[in-house]
Amino acid sequence: MFVERMAELKKIGRIAGIDAFLVNSEPNMRYLAGFSTLAIERFAGLVVSVEESTPTVIVPRLEEQKAREKSAFKEIRSYDDSESPARVLRHVIKEEKLEKATFGVEWTLAFKFYKMLVECSPRIKVKDASEIFSQLRCIKSEEEQENIRKAASIVRKGINAGIDFIKPGVSEASISFEIEKTIKQNGGESVPFCLVLSGSNSAIPHGETSSRKVIKQDVVLMDVGAVYKGYYADLTRTVFVGQATRKQREIYEIVAKAQEAAIKTVKPKVKAEEVDAAARRTIEKAGYGDYFTHRTGHGLGLEVHEEPYITKGNKTVLQPGMTFTIEPGIYLAGEFGVRIEDNIVVSTKDGRLLSNLPKDLQVISSA
Amino acid sequence: MFVERMAELKKIGRIAGIDAFLVNSEPNMRYLAGFSTLAIERFAGLVVSVEESTPTVIVPRLEEQKAREKSAFKEIRSYDDSESPARVLRHVIKEEKLEKATFGVEWTLAFKFYKMLVECSPRIKVKDASEIFSQLRCIKSEEEQENIRKAASIVRKGINAGIDFIKPGVSEASISFEIEKTIKQNGGESVPFCLVLSGSNSAIPHGETSSRKVIKQDVVLMDVGAVYKGYYADLTRTVFVGQATRKQREIYEIVAKAQEAAIKTVKPKVKAEEVDAAARRTIEKAGYGDYFTHRTGHGLGLEVHEEPYITKGNKTVLQPGMTFTIEPGIYLAGEFGVRIEDNIVVSTKDGRLLSNLPKDLQVISSA
Repeated sequence: MFVERMAELKKIGRIAGIDAFLVNSEPNMRYLAGFSTLAIERFAGLVVSVEESTPTVIVPRLEEQKAREKSAFKEIRSYDDSESPARVLRHVIKEEKLEKATFGVEWTLAFKFYKMLVECSPRIKVKDASEIFSQLRCIKSEEEQENIRKAASIVRKGINAGIDFIKPGVSEASISFEIEKTIKQNGGESVPFCLVLSGSNSAIPHGETSSRKVIKQDVVLMDVGAVYKGYYADLTRTVFVGQATRKQREIYEIVAKAQEAAIKTVKPKVKAEEVDAAARRTIEKAGYGDYFTHRTGHGLGLEVHEEPYITKGNKTVLQPGMTFTIEPGIYLAGEFGVRIEDNIVVSTKDGRLLSNLPKDLQVISSA
Repeated sequence: MFVERMAELKKIGRIAGIDAFLVNSEPNMRYLAGFSTLAIERFAGLVVSVEESTPTVIVPRLEEQKAREKSAFKEIRSYDDSESPARVLRHVIKEEKLEKATFGVEWTLAFKFYKMLVECSPRIKVKDASEIFSQLRCIKSEEEQENIRKAASIVRKGINAGIDFIKPGVSEASISFEIEKTIKQNGGESVPFCLVLSGSNSAIPHGETSSRKVIKQDVVLMDVGAVYKGYYADLTRTVFVGQATRKQREIYEIVAKAQEAAIKTVKPKVKAEEVDAAARRTIEKAGYGDYFTHRTGHGLGLEVHEEPYITKGNKTVLQPGMTFTIEPGIYLAGEFGVRIEDNIVVSTKDGRLLSNLPKDLQVISSA
């Protein structure tokens, strides 16, 4: 599998006029070599010439044992804390005759490592090759889809536990903790985020879970992620405590319709922006266009945000195997917000849910 | 406080020949402006001219409300998902007349944002100004020290809960979960890592918590972080289940002595590398130099790894208010590893513990 992915990377690289890749990000390392490191401020990466040679893995000494065990490629060079990775990189570049190469890098590559690369040789050129990595990763194999499906089923258990736990007097933080606990008990490798926003906090799209206690007639929005075998799922549900006002019901129905409209738009050859437009149109028609302040969704995989972004202007053509969120929302500042988020895979003829969680308006007893 | 920090940044910048800063990292945003964003793939940052003007905050529209509420500086520009932050940045650079400026950036600045900056004007120069930010942040105020002390006391509770929970048959994952739960219940804002490594896993310095179950005569190494008001603590303890062999006792005593020697070396005007050398010398003398494969410690603050790094070759002179870990270890591959880690602040005359957790060799009952 890793040999095939590497061959594909080299092939796309050659077409794009790239001579070599410097791969540094955790998800790309994991995708291409089967392991990643805790490379915080230390450099770790793969040097991949598009010629017929084995990729070289560069790791801090501390990670060498792990690399030897887990890396799909065994050409491993390490450096210790008192040495510079620049010396190792320069050496590899010389061996592979890459002194005049055009390097493809990730958009996230740190300025320091960018400088380290260009200082290896005055004739090295650097290009943002993020799209190549995205192109490789955005079509998910059956196995990858299954991992996301499993992650989504774990999130579902978490959100259900959260819903069971909600009642007047419990804090956002304790609901969040309950969800997180359930996810871990059910095999979630990590809980990258577990937002619980109640009352007017729910109107802040990227608010933070607080110690605020839920009261009667609150809205509670839960936006939760989980990781399974490295793959992310990301679901949101918004529920009501004790009762839902007429306005809340109205807003909920609009968001649900917008989500449904977006999901129905999904099929191969449709553009990502068309899916966004379907959700946006529904909300605009209902008169709340100004209150839907973010994109409709984002791709999901080894990262929680990746291609394809379901947003205005994204002309990416959907293909079978692409996986992403659809998550429209309406936020009325000072009042409340509603967001409904599911995870979708493009099949050969439509969009299928990877997640399986009811989305009818739910009123939790306030007794 | 933020106005003072900003004035200090400008002052140091002017001395270093820097005309402006582009601040993009979460901890620096938090330190300088009192807030940070969930800027994952979207750009958020501060543009700070060293001249007498107000810094400009650039955020995605989604974060605008939060910025208006929390930012210490109110000159805020936002862009939505369908616009480019480059346009906003170019505009700010023009207004502030920074088209020929030398910009100081963080070493972590993503290649994409580096390119966005240099493409604003062909005459912009970019320098790594990470040391300036470190210099500002590495001396902690009383309040900052108190936050780390509090974070350490929360980690202590977590590790103690872990120790109480350990017995033959429980998994590394469940011990880790117990620690994490305790930290959150005691006010930890997040648990950035909570490594539990047992048996021969403990010999992998950056191993991963697994489902391995603890057995009689195991070594269990717990390396745990917690965050309080944005500030990190990071402690490690290694305990023994049922019994400790003669060799295990020997190794434990060497590591404890090495740590003590390093702590005793700490005082103002001593170099960071001298603290590292004190620990290393102790371990080398005992014949295990080759098995102490990492640096002795790292600074702690708004990041879990920051200056001063306690490592060979770091000539940084310790000053009162600096905070860091001291964490020597010995790792015998295939057998076991021992690490003991505490957090220290430099006082006006010596090194003081910020953490207060016993470190005598501890054997847990295996009954």
